Amino acid sequence: MAKVPADYIIYGDYVVTVNTAMDVISNGAVAVKDNIIIAVGDATTLFKKYPEAKVLGGKGQLVMPGLVNTHNHAPMVYLRGIADDLPLKEWLEEHIWPKEGKWVGSEFVSDATKLACLEMLQGGTTTFADMYFYCDAMARSVKSVGLRAVLGETGFDFPTAAVKSLAEYFQRAEEFIQLWQDEALIKPSIAPHSPYACCPETLKKVQHIAHKYNAPIHIHVAETEWEVQEIKSKYGKRPVEHLDAIGFLNEHVIAAHCVWLDPHEIEILAKRKVGVAHCIESNLKLASGIAPIPAMLREGVKVGLGTDGAASNNDLNMFSEIATAAKVHKLFAKDLTALDAKTAVLMATKRGAEVLGYNNLGFLAPGALADIITLDLERAHLLPLYNVYSHLVYAANAADVVNVMVNGEILLHNGEVISCDVAEILAKAHEWNRKII
Amino acid sequence: MAKVPADYIIYGDYVVTVNTAMDVISNGAVAVKDNIIIAVGDATTLFKKYPEAKVLGGKGQLVMPGLVNTHNHAPMVYLRGIADDLPLKEWLEEHIWPKEGKWVGSEFVSDATKLACLEMLQGGTTTFADMYFYCDAMARSVKSVGLRAVLGETGFDFPTAAVKSLAEYFQRAEEFIQLWQDEALIKPSIAPHSPYACCPETLKKVQHIAHKYNAPIHIHVAETEWEVQEIKSKYGKRPVEHLDAIGFLNEHVIAAHCVWLDPHEIEILAKRKVGVAHCIESNLKLASGIAPIPAMLREGVKVGLGTDGAASNNDLNMFSEIATAAKVHKLFAKDLTALDAKTAVLMATKRGAEVLGYNNLGFLAPGALADIITLDLERAHLLPLYNVYSHLVYAANAADVVNVMVNGEILLHNGEVISCDVAEILAKAHEWNRKII
Repeated sequence: MAKVPADYIIYGDYVVTVNTAMDVISNGAVAVKDNIIIAVGDATTLFKKYPEAKVLGGKGQLVMPGLVNTHNHAPMVYLRGIADDLPLKEWLEEHIWPKEGKWVGSEFVSDATKLACLEMLQGGTTTFADMYFYCDAMARSVKSVGLRAVLGETGFDFPTAAVKSLAEYFQRAEEFIQLWQDEALIKPSIAPHSPYACCPETLKKVQHIAHKYNAPIHIHVAETEWEVQEIKSKYGKRPVEHLDAIGFLNEHVIAAHCVWLDPHEIEILAKRKVGVAHCIESNLKLASGIAPIPAMLREGVKVGLGTDGAASNNDLNMFSEIATAAKVHKLFAKDLTALDAKTAVLMATKRGAEVLGYNNLGFLAPGALADIITLDLERAHLLPLYNVYSHLVYAANAADVVNVMVNGEILLHNGEVISCDVAEILAKAHEWNRKII
Repeated sequence: MAKVPADYIIYGDYVVTVNTAMDVISNGAVAVKDNIIIAVGDATTLFKKYPEAKVLGGKGQLVMPGLVNTHNHAPMVYLRGIADDLPLKEWLEEHIWPKEGKWVGSEFVSDATKLACLEMLQGGTTTFADMYFYCDAMARSVKSVGLRAVLGETGFDFPTAAVKSLAEYFQRAEEFIQLWQDEALIKPSIAPHSPYACCPETLKKVQHIAHKYNAPIHIHVAETEWEVQEIKSKYGKRPVEHLDAIGFLNEHVIAAHCVWLDPHEIEILAKRKVGVAHCIESNLKLASGIAPIPAMLREGVKVGLGTDGAASNNDLNMFSEIATAAKVHKLFAKDLTALDAKTAVLMATKRGAEVLGYNNLGFLAPGALADIITLDLERAHLLPLYNVYSHLVYAANAADVVNVMVNGEILLHNGEVISCDVAEILAKAHEWNRKII
C-alpha cells in the first residue's frame, strides 16, 4: 500500500487528544491530510513518517481539538454591552428588541457575524451552533472566515425583525436548508425559539422540515422559572415534559439552557438523547438560574458548553465558560469533584460536537475532522505545569491560542489571523457602532 | 507660580477615573510628575500644557487605575494546578501542605514571587496584599519587578514551614516590618492566619505589634462553614463576633473571604471599618460558599476583590475576578442590579486600595499615586463599545492590558515587560517545575 503523505503536522509539548481513553501525549503530534486527521502520536515518529509535511505548532505549545460553542446568536456581538445590569424585562423590551427591530437586516447580520467569527477564531472556537435571523447572510460570513457552524433561522409564532408571518418563516427556513445543505462547513438547522414562543403546531411543522432534510433542531428550553410557569399554565406540564408529550424530543434536538428541570425531565433528556447546550455565564449574568449539570451528567445526558449571544454574556470566550462552569458547579453541588477539569474539557470539545450531531469532531484521532488549535504555554500564568487539564480549565485564556486549523485549513497562524481581513472587520464594527449608538 | 513640568502623559479614547464622580473622560489624558498624578482631563489640553512630557497610551486605548488585588499568597504560583478537584481536606493534607513543607524556603519564595508579579503586571494588577512565609524574600522580589504590595508574614499557633515557634514567628514578623517600613512601594503588615489557627493571646500580640508600627493586619475570616462551627464550639461566638469581642477589629484589619456572616457580623464589619477581601473564584473552586457581598455593600462595608493564591484559583487574573463577581452575585441575589459593572470596577480599584489602607490610590485625580494601566480596545471581543464599565467587567481580559505604570515608573510598555527579565523568570519556573514534580 502506498504511503499517504500528510499535508500538515501539528506538534507540541502536549497533545490533549480527548479520544476515548482521554490520552495526553507528551511531545506529541497530529498529522493531517486534506481535512482529516490521519495520525496522532509521538512527534519524532510522525516527523520521520511524514518528512514532507508542513509544520504547525512548536515547543512550548499544547495541541488540542478546537472548541465547540453549542449555543450562540453571533450577530448580537454588535449589541455587546448596549445595556446591562437591568431587570430582564426592561433589558429586552426597552433595549434589545427595539435595537434589533431598528437595525437587524441582512447587512447587519453579515457584518456582525464576521466580527463574531473573528472573536471566536482568536479564542480557539472552531465550531459553533447559532440561531438568529437572516441565516443566509450569516452562513456567507461564516464561510468567508472559515469556521464550522450549525446555523438555523429562528422562528416565533409572531412576526419578527426578519419575517412578516409564520408562513414566510417556514419558507425562508426551508430555503436556507436547501441552499446550504451540501456545504462542507455549514450544517443547516432549524431553530424554533422556545416552547413558549412556538405553539405545538409550529413545533410539529418544524419537526417535519427537520426530518425531511435530516437537520438538527436548535431551541431554547427551560431557561427561566417564568417559562416553567408559563408552559405549565398553558399545557399543564413542565417544558421538557410538554415537548416530549408532543413527540418533539430526539437526538437531533439541541436544547439550550435547560436550567429549570426536575429529575423526571432529566431522565427524559437522557432517554431521548437530546443534546444540551449549557450557558453558565449567560445564566449567571441574567440571573436565570443554575442548570443541574452534575445530575444531568450522572444520568448520561449529552451536555456541551455555549456562550449564548454577546448581548447577554458579553463575549464569545469559551475558555471563560469552561472555567466558570467548572468552578460554579463545585459550589452549587457543595462537592469539589462535581465537575472536574477533564470533564469540562470534554464538554467543550467532543461532547459539544456530539450535541451538534457530529460523531467525527472534537477529538484528535485518525479519521476525525482536522479542527485543531494550539496554545502557547510559555506564559507566566501557565507555569509551572503539573496537569494539562487543570491549566486548560483554571488558568488558560482565549488569548493563549496561537494557531487554529479548521477542516485542514489554517485560519490563525502563530497568533496572526490569516483567513480574513481583521482591519476591515474592526472598521465595520466601528461604523455600526457610530450608527447604533 | 512656575509651571511644574510633567514627566509623562498617558492618554486614550477613554479615561476611567474612578474619582468621586466616577467621571469617564473621552479623549482624555493623565499627567504624571515623579510618582504622582498632577492633572487629569482633556488630552489636547494636557498635551498643550505639558509639551515636553513623554507619552504613553494611544488612540484606541482605555486608561484606568491599576487593579488592586486585596488577597493573595503569591509564592503559591509554583504550586499552580498541582492538585485540583479534590475534597478540601485531602487537597490540603495530602498535596499542598506536604509540598510546602518540602519546598518552601527563602529561594522558593523569592523565585515564585517574581513569577507571580510578572503574571499580575501583565494582567494590570499594580498593587497586591499578600500573606505568606519568608516575607523578606518576597519583598525583595516584589521590589525587583516594581509592583506595590502590602506584605505580611503569616503566623499560626503551631510551627510552620518557616518558623519553629510562635516566639520565632513574632521576632521574624516584627523584624520584617522594621526592615521594610520606609520602602516606597512596600507596606509591611502582619498576618495571623485565622481565628481558628491563632488563639486570642496570639491575636493580641499581633495587634500590639501592628499598633506599634501602624501596620495593617491581614487575616482569613469566616472562609468556611466548618470554621464557624469550630469558633462557635471554642468561644461560643461566630468568627466576626469573636474577633470583635476580643477587641481585634478596626480599620487596619484586612479580612479575607468573609463568606459565612450573619447580619449582625455584617454590621460589626461596617461599624469597625474592617476591609473585606472578596475572593469569589477561590470560594467557588473550593466550594467554600458565597460571601453576602450585596448585603455588605448595602451596609457600607469596604469590599475589595482578591484572587487568593494560585494553588486554589488557579491564576492571579483580576479581570476574571471582576467578571465572575459581577455575574455570580446577580444570580445569588436573583437581582440583575445586585452588583453592577461600575461597582465591580470600583471594588477592583479605589475600594480595594481603601481596604489596604491607602487613601491616595486606585483612582486618577491630582495628588493620587501614579499607578495607571491602559487597555487596547481595538480587539474583536471589545467592539462595538457602548459602555466602558460594561466592557471592563464583562468583556475585557488580562491580555488586553498593554501599558502599566506603578509609582510613576513604566513596567509594561506597549505590551512588552520592561521592568524584569521575563525569560529568566520563566526559566526559573521550569527549573522548579522539574524539581517539584
